[in-house]
Amino acid sequence: MTFTAEPIEVTAEELGRVVYDADGLVPAIVQDASNGEVLMMAWMNAESLERTLATGRTWFWSRSRAELWCKGETSGDRQYVRAAFYDCDGDTLLFVVDQEGRGACHTGLRSFFFRAFGHPDRDPSAEPAAGESPA
Amino acid sequence: MTFTAEPIEVTAEELGRVVYDADGLVPAIVQDASNGEVLMMAWMNAESLERTLATGRTWFWSRSRAELWCKGETSGDRQYVRAAFYDCDGDTLLFVVDQEGRGACHTGLRSFFFRAFGHPDRDPSAEPAAGESPA
Repeated sequence: MTFTAEPIEVTAEELGRVVYDADGLVPAIVQDASNGEVLMMAWMNAESLERTLATGRTWFWSRSRAELWCKGETSGDRQYVRAAFYDCDGDTLLFVVDQEGRGACHTGLRSFFFRAFGHPDRDPSAEPAAGESPA
Repeated sequence: MTFTAEPIEVTAEELGRVVYDADGLVPAIVQDASNGEVLMMAWMNAESLERTLATGRTWFWSRSRAELWCKGETSGDRQYVRAAFYDCDGDTLLFVVDQEGRGACHTGLRSFFFRAFGHPDRDPSAEPAAGESPA
């Protein structure tokens, strides 16, 4: 399936409602628009948030590499933003996306959250997707 | 609806896979088991994670009050854990819960994520739930 990027126009006042931590970062949850699955959580600084809204694709701040990165730019597993929310105190973001390619995780699985507590011996690649109850 | 708490038995080895930040905290996303809606994100330390799994109800660490709190203990809006996941690098948790009462947010709304970027003038209480596309 081919997806199209759709920028989201925001005001400076809206952007000003986001509360960044001492490192200038805010956690960003990414949810699959097609089925509600929680795909991943990563960090955004003000620039990555603005790029995400302006381009309609998810940009994050890598704390380990100390650089901006666009999800899927190297892997092809791009995320196209369909809706963007901020929570009641402005310190967490939620992006609902169309997930292109194999999935969000570098392991090739759809979601980062494939390991369930209480199932230590289960093969991770056989884990249920987040949002589904384990059998 | 009345929900029953169901503890999740975990091994020390599983708990050891969780990676805490410099403050001893890990972000915990909470998702509604009934519809996949992302309800909230809050922080857990090791003790709140262990209490959550042992009691089957969500416990968090309040950074502002510097204390453990059990979701819904005062409001009645309790969360009963149905599945608990950790992501591929162990630094984010995901809890799928049955949400009791009115909802997760102190505003009385179901989700914390009721404000959408690009809709600055919309009445927050009329916002679509997270996971739904705004009209």
